[in-house]
Amino acid sequence: MTNKQRIKQLFKILDQQQVYQRSIGKLYFDMECCAPDEGLEQAGEDMAVLGQQLYKLEHSKKYERLIIELHDDPEGLTPVQKKMIDHAYDRYLKVKNFTPQFSYEMDVALNKAYGQWLAAKKANDFSLFRDSLVSVVDFTRKAVDLREQKYPTYYTACLDDYEKGGNEEQLDAFFGALKVRIIPLMQQIVKEGKPIREDFLRRPCPIYQQEAFSRYLLETEGLRKTATVLMTTEHPFTTNFGPKDVRVTTHYFEDNFISNIFSTMHEGGHALFMQNEPEEFYENHADNQMSNAMHECISRFYENLIGRSEAFIHFVYPKLRELTGDTFADVSERELYEAVNIARPSLIRTESDELTYCLHILIRYEIEKVLVNGEITVDEVPTLWNAKYKEYLGVDVPNDTVGCLQDVHWSSGFGYFPSYALGNAYGAQILRIMEQDFDVFGAVANGELTKVADWLKEHVFSCASILDPDEWIREVTGESLNVNYYLDYLEKKYKALYRL
Amino acid sequence: MTNKQRIKQLFKILDQQQVYQRSIGKLYFDMECCAPDEGLEQAGEDMAVLGQQLYKLEHSKKYERLIIELHDDPEGLTPVQKKMIDHAYDRYLKVKNFTPQFSYEMDVALNKAYGQWLAAKKANDFSLFRDSLVSVVDFTRKAVDLREQKYPTYYTACLDDYEKGGNEEQLDAFFGALKVRIIPLMQQIVKEGKPIREDFLRRPCPIYQQEAFSRYLLETEGLRKTATVLMTTEHPFTTNFGPKDVRVTTHYFEDNFISNIFSTMHEGGHALFMQNEPEEFYENHADNQMSNAMHECISRFYENLIGRSEAFIHFVYPKLRELTGDTFADVSERELYEAVNIARPSLIRTESDELTYCLHILIRYEIEKVLVNGEITVDEVPTLWNAKYKEYLGVDVPNDTVGCLQDVHWSSGFGYFPSYALGNAYGAQILRIMEQDFDVFGAVANGELTKVADWLKEHVFSCASILDPDEWIREVTGESLNVNYYLDYLEKKYKALYRL
Repeated sequence: MTNKQRIKQLFKILDQQQVYQRSIGKLYFDMECCAPDEGLEQAGEDMAVLGQQLYKLEHSKKYERLIIELHDDPEGLTPVQKKMIDHAYDRYLKVKNFTPQFSYEMDVALNKAYGQWLAAKKANDFSLFRDSLVSVVDFTRKAVDLREQKYPTYYTACLDDYEKGGNEEQLDAFFGALKVRIIPLMQQIVKEGKPIREDFLRRPCPIYQQEAFSRYLLETEGLRKTATVLMTTEHPFTTNFGPKDVRVTTHYFEDNFISNIFSTMHEGGHALFMQNEPEEFYENHADNQMSNAMHECISRFYENLIGRSEAFIHFVYPKLRELTGDTFADVSERELYEAVNIARPSLIRTESDELTYCLHILIRYEIEKVLVNGEITVDEVPTLWNAKYKEYLGVDVPNDTVGCLQDVHWSSGFGYFPSYALGNAYGAQILRIMEQDFDVFGAVANGELTKVADWLKEHVFSCASILDPDEWIREVTGESLNVNYYLDYLEKKYKALYRL
Repeated sequence: MTNKQRIKQLFKILDQQQVYQRSIGKLYFDMECCAPDEGLEQAGEDMAVLGQQLYKLEHSKKYERLIIELHDDPEGLTPVQKKMIDHAYDRYLKVKNFTPQFSYEMDVALNKAYGQWLAAKKANDFSLFRDSLVSVVDFTRKAVDLREQKYPTYYTACLDDYEKGGNEEQLDAFFGALKVRIIPLMQQIVKEGKPIREDFLRRPCPIYQQEAFSRYLLETEGLRKTATVLMTTEHPFTTNFGPKDVRVTTHYFEDNFISNIFSTMHEGGHALFMQNEPEEFYENHADNQMSNAMHECISRFYENLIGRSEAFIHFVYPKLRELTGDTFADVSERELYEAVNIARPSLIRTESDELTYCLHILIRYEIEKVLVNGEITVDEVPTLWNAKYKEYLGVDVPNDTVGCLQDVHWSSGFGYFPSYALGNAYGAQILRIMEQDFDVFGAVANGELTKVADWLKEHVFSCASILDPDEWIREVTGESLNVNYYLDYLEKKYKALYRL
């Protein structure tokens, strides 16, 4: 058999895998955005059954043989195909020793965990989630044990899933640098920062007005209307089923219009990435292979570097005023800009500001690392969480709903959180290069955000899925990740804002 | 093997079938309520692939053997199980001769037809739908040819799918009686009816207000909040995934608040039926086996007999006023009641009134009968449609978007439409009996609609899925379908309303 024939046979199987992946993805989307409470349990069971079918396709002897053969002798493959095979081979090694029974039980456990996390958060009762969290940790470790690859620690294996080559030493150093420069800056702001007007931030803003503004933001970001939908969920996320079907979700709080604005900008960034990879990637099942930090880089680029800039606020201010009647008639453009950038130690990661955000991630990183590595038990999580919030952010956590139950992530696994912080740092490093090519904030002030998207499409989206993180950031910016660009950016912005 | 063992084995297969049915159902729901335009084609292909898997389960030798054995010797089965087996056996005979290839091609064609119907309607261009409609007719006839059962005509086979035992003679007589009494009444109203105030019907009413009112209506009807969702779609429908997950959809028109109100009442009726069958039915895969006319009976019961009654308008009027600000401040309760009951020959079935509605159905019945039976071609449909609208309703059809492209139904098959008319007639016959048991409209005027739902649960939902249509209406009302109750009801209501 020639490699051309192998690729043809492989693509036939991948096409079928995609049907199951998309279907399970849509059932998940349905569970998050449509299904009533009573329907969640059933939905989880259905997803697990389809997951079994997907498992069979991913573990068929034929599929595995093709991946191995093409990996061992990639003669005649295009570079994009070769990278796709490498990804598939890596995934294959990770799960080749899973039994169907193990996969099924893990699926059921994770789906159940989601429901129990939701219930625990609603009831503010960690004990409702406790057993599920034990089970998620347990399945995570078992899955690592079953991997063909070997890692120095369980948590390193989790990191590798989200950021290939990621390790604890690198992240310890990364977060160490952040800690040294951000905590003092935060403390200085608390003590000496000029007060910022914020009385209007909790003014009721009807959800239908917020929704109209969200749609405007997505359009401004440059998303294709006929290929994008916007819906509502508890914990906003973005997903896609190919480039023609991208789903952005958000959450509206009537008394916190700011929350939805930056959530939408963030998710819209993810959506742009999903919609704008090269055609060749989609055609070769090579799309959507970028690391999570690369994805978070783009979402947080739009949320913060663009979204919370003076230039962007200047551009959207008139539209916000137009859509919200007299609600913000007494608020100036400058006051809006300052208010959306207020930095303050707080409890909720998703509602936290650009400056303190990474400290929330730091805490999660430190906890999930020791939890997965078996150095603490699940029962110690709430206490440890609260202690770290006190130590790093100086805040008291009154209950677990706003403490360790606030995020959905741990109901499905570990290792994702660091991506948010890495993404921030990547973004600042990329912005510096983008500014050498054109007047970024001049364009943003005119609402020409398509210039930004076009640049990202040419320089970032064009290669993310086929490069490992370090290769990629070097390709885009000419050097490896350097957290100092990000820290410089934060210091400059916040010192000016608070007149320090 | 004992029958107890057979049932156990069968239920295992049925459980798995249900997973695929629910998954396909959710993909369909997603396509209608969530997916962006560009994603529709892909979604149709995915549904077809899952449909192939479902096909395999429904055609497995083991499944068929169990159904045949349990059908031929039902010893020890409960009556509910016996009926479930009868239904399954009937379905088995209908599709036993389908090849996987045929089923797959039909699925692909029907899913494609949906997209093309949508495109044709949007573009007001019948030619965009023409080939698909030819294909739907073709597959319909081929499917009938492949059936084990034999029918006097192709269309009779279609009718049997929706109303077991339904036939052209019965429906010709049914619609004949309707025609004789309703057309003259309609003409009398046009000529001599007292004018009804209607200036406020097209006043803009923001969608968020309409949505709040819709949620209120569903709650008033007695739907369980934790098991029901409300969403938006082009052509409203209701679906469910067991009694714990019921989905109502509606469509909002800013300049036609009435449309959404009665669409919601209608779909809410379907939802109540889905949510309130006996536990024993759900446990034995015997739920949701009622005929379509039985289902339409309940939906149109809530839409018209209840929803358009003076009592109901009296009850909801204050809530409507509360939710819509000053928009309807100058409209009295009586004026609202009269306006929602305006009868007038019109173009659009779903927007038509209670009186002329059945004439819209009559036209579709007459056309689909000759189309499926091969007496006319697809190309003749638009002309025939327009001619019948002129003859029966006296209206000129200006274009196909408001003519023969207005309904989604023919993109998936034929034989459904008569159910709407039969459902109306069943409803009036059932209301007469319900009123012998309690003061229906007294309860409605107090908002005690749960009394209505409870009565339906006890007398109607309790037996619909396990009885054939004629058995069922005799069980509930003591006699076979008698269209005169419905015609009497219409004449009485409309003569009073228009002071004739």
